[in-house]
Amino acid sequence: MAGIFAKIAAGDIPSYKCAENDKFYAFLDINPLVKGHTLVIPRREVDYIFDLADDELAEMTVFAKKVAEAIKRAFPCIKVGMAVLGLEVPHAHIHLVPMNSEKDMLFSNPKLKLGDEEFREISERIFSEFEKSMD
Amino acid sequence: MAGIFAKIAAGDIPSYKCAENDKFYAFLDINPLVKGHTLVIPRREVDYIFDLADDELAEMTVFAKKVAEAIKRAFPCIKVGMAVLGLEVPHAHIHLVPMNSEKDMLFSNPKLKLGDEEFREISERIFSEFEKSMD
Repeated sequence: MAGIFAKIAAGDIPSYKCAENDKFYAFLDINPLVKGHTLVIPRREVDYIFDLADDELAEMTVFAKKVAEAIKRAFPCIKVGMAVLGLEVPHAHIHLVPMNSEKDMLFSNPKLKLGDEEFREISERIFSEFEKSMD
Repeated sequence: MAGIFAKIAAGDIPSYKCAENDKFYAFLDINPLVKGHTLVIPRREVDYIFDLADDELAEMTVFAKKVAEAIKRAFPCIKVGMAVLGLEVPHAHIHLVPMNSEKDMLFSNPKLKLGDEEFREISERIFSEFEKSMD
């Protein structure tokens, strides 16, 4: 049975879409550390990121770079940080977090509480920047 | 002038080497979160990881995967986590951290204090596993 992230990538569970292509999907973390905190996943269900084949892992990272560039244009920051922890949801995912301080990447920080309208507006800004870069 | 990580990759500043090839270098973080905490850097000095060209970023991630596999064989764990923060040293680096709990990746955790002998033993175990996988 497909897990929650596979269902999100397939559109069977709604999400705030930030970017997509045929192999990868990016959407907002609904427990964000900061505004613009995004998750990148492969559509194919693989638990451990380092179990991806070399070429898939390479493609996923390059896709994540394009998403990070879109995030940085939508939410100006010093850098977009990247983290893969992966002991909670068994579907490989890269966290992309706009950073203005090292502390922005502390996963122990309290998560932002945002409403549907805010999530929608954030994801649309990132999606729009991503699409522009694909033109 | 070359920064500290470029000097480490060039061998001008000593480090506990875990893996290397012509483009990338991996060595122990001397302020480790857990035993086996390793940094992967490009020999070329680039500050922001997403400023690497697509093919360089792809190659760096695949190199990091091989290092993560070596770490996991040397220090059995559930997964090897990955993080790029990058607001401290201006030379792109991937943290690889053997994880047995999500908490192992909290950069606010107190760092381990290890002696030269321990660092040497840890890096030799990882280096040996990395070399075996290259045979």
